[in-house]
Amino acid sequence: MPGIEDVEREIKIVLRGEPEILFDAANYLISTGGKRLRPRLLLSFNDALGGNHEQAIKAAASIEMLHNFTLIHDDIMDKDETRHGVPTTHVKYGEAIAILAGDVLQSQSQMEMARATEGLPKSKARHLLERHAYVSTEIARGQTLDMTFENLPYEKFNSKLYYSMIKLKTAVLFSHACWVGAYLADASSSLANKAAIFGLNLGMAFQMADDILGLVGDPSITGKPVGSDVRNGKRTMPIIIALSKLSGEKRLKVLNKLKKEDTSVIGDIVEIGAINDTKLLMNQFYQKAESVLSELPKSTHIEDLRALLSSSVVREK
Amino acid sequence: MPGIEDVEREIKIVLRGEPEILFDAANYLISTGGKRLRPRLLLSFNDALGGNHEQAIKAAASIEMLHNFTLIHDDIMDKDETRHGVPTTHVKYGEAIAILAGDVLQSQSQMEMARATEGLPKSKARHLLERHAYVSTEIARGQTLDMTFENLPYEKFNSKLYYSMIKLKTAVLFSHACWVGAYLADASSSLANKAAIFGLNLGMAFQMADDILGLVGDPSITGKPVGSDVRNGKRTMPIIIALSKLSGEKRLKVLNKLKKEDTSVIGDIVEIGAINDTKLLMNQFYQKAESVLSELPKSTHIEDLRALLSSSVVREK
Repeated sequence: MPGIEDVEREIKIVLRGEPEILFDAANYLISTGGKRLRPRLLLSFNDALGGNHEQAIKAAASIEMLHNFTLIHDDIMDKDETRHGVPTTHVKYGEAIAILAGDVLQSQSQMEMARATEGLPKSKARHLLERHAYVSTEIARGQTLDMTFENLPYEKFNSKLYYSMIKLKTAVLFSHACWVGAYLADASSSLANKAAIFGLNLGMAFQMADDILGLVGDPSITGKPVGSDVRNGKRTMPIIIALSKLSGEKRLKVLNKLKKEDTSVIGDIVEIGAINDTKLLMNQFYQKAESVLSELPKSTHIEDLRALLSSSVVREK
Repeated sequence: MPGIEDVEREIKIVLRGEPEILFDAANYLISTGGKRLRPRLLLSFNDALGGNHEQAIKAAASIEMLHNFTLIHDDIMDKDETRHGVPTTHVKYGEAIAILAGDVLQSQSQMEMARATEGLPKSKARHLLERHAYVSTEIARGQTLDMTFENLPYEKFNSKLYYSMIKLKTAVLFSHACWVGAYLADASSSLANKAAIFGLNLGMAFQMADDILGLVGDPSITGKPVGSDVRNGKRTMPIIIALSKLSGEKRLKVLNKLKKEDTSVIGDIVEIGAINDTKLLMNQFYQKAESVLSELPKSTHIEDLRALLSSSVVREK
């Protein structure tokens, strides 16, 4: 089975060129770390269903480049200064080069996915490439919702809006990675669809875990500053739950702290049990993903997928 | 023959979606004008060689979206506040939405080009899509050079660097548009190559015309502020020529004005004849493009291409 180091080697080959500063900036975030969950999921599904290793490595490299493209542009928009515990791309290279580095990751991702379709029948290849390009549009839609919601009064935000946002912002790319892995292995459309559903539920749970870490994670482990989500005015599930459980004076106090982006509100959110309640909801997505796995033919690859699911949700960074 | 209005209709269909603000921002620059030279060139080459209209319209829409993606991101980087005589996308929608609007134009461009490959043999389709994605990387390389050169001492800038930059920044997309038009019409590779060479030379001449307009164009026609290239410290051919023709005191005076981004330097550049000399060099590219046309089978489409070539170079905006 191809390993993640094959994917990393492939990315380095695809991200070479002149001027040096542009390609250095495009490689930078990837080189500073990351869990590589999306390419790992793709490789595992592909292997579970007997796919061609060379094509899977290219597709996995393409997905990881697309992911990093969105992170670099998001960090500019959110004015985040650190990620993986080091300066973000725009802090290190300036905003202009960071925009271009993201653009190059996006175009090289599309190019690499086109290469990964070698050997597929032509209508299958076209379908894969249309989906791959559209996923990128969906992520931009999700990021737009995320930013739009930051200006929505807390009273008007609810779990339906939250789910619609995290689905686009985060879960579709996990879903796509799993689907591509299965699709390239020539899975039946019902089997590829199961892979997509697994990835979607894993992705929803992943984002909820992220939102919990954004409030109560250890900054020395997450690499993000304490309470950055509160300071950015991010609308997340723990906040929705906290506000729904509170009333009167206490609710006003929490609303007030949120509006002032006062990080001491985290204590109030924890105290009312909103972190625990978020974990229960997150667990529902986890269970849905888990139940898809039990429908797949048993193999060691299923254990790999189970381990990836678990590490996407039960994590400290 | 399909017209540019078919391409504009197709773009509107491809750029629909929610949240509204994101797709409004993605449509905005296109809706404010533009000469549509690239899609026109694609359609003309395609028609000259007997291509399928429906596929050509999709490809032309894809190219125009890619072009507008690069303009929106470039305007952010260059801090340009007007284009086509109206506020740029980031001025109207804010920088974050403008970054995302560009991202969406880029991904929808890739998706639309994948759709345009319907009917092509699979290895031809893959080749087209790899090239289309890589063109986007090349334009980012060109924009990086453009910005890097802004910080280069004027003494170290020369025509070789200038040509390498404008080729990537501008000419490759014209070349690609012409090549795609021919390639989709199933042209022989020698004929498609001629189309690419025509487009490359047209593109070089186009950028030189742009650089002349950036100095001596009428702002009420170009829609760009007077002397914006001087104020942005852009390194262009008229400046290279002016500095090479001057010496001693006069040269120092011009260098000094350029460093201070003083737009009165335009008078000095005109006076020494650097605009005229740039036109002579531009004309060499024009002639090369023209000579490719004379090698193609005679038809009314060749006259269309000749008119497009002429309007790319002899223009006031």
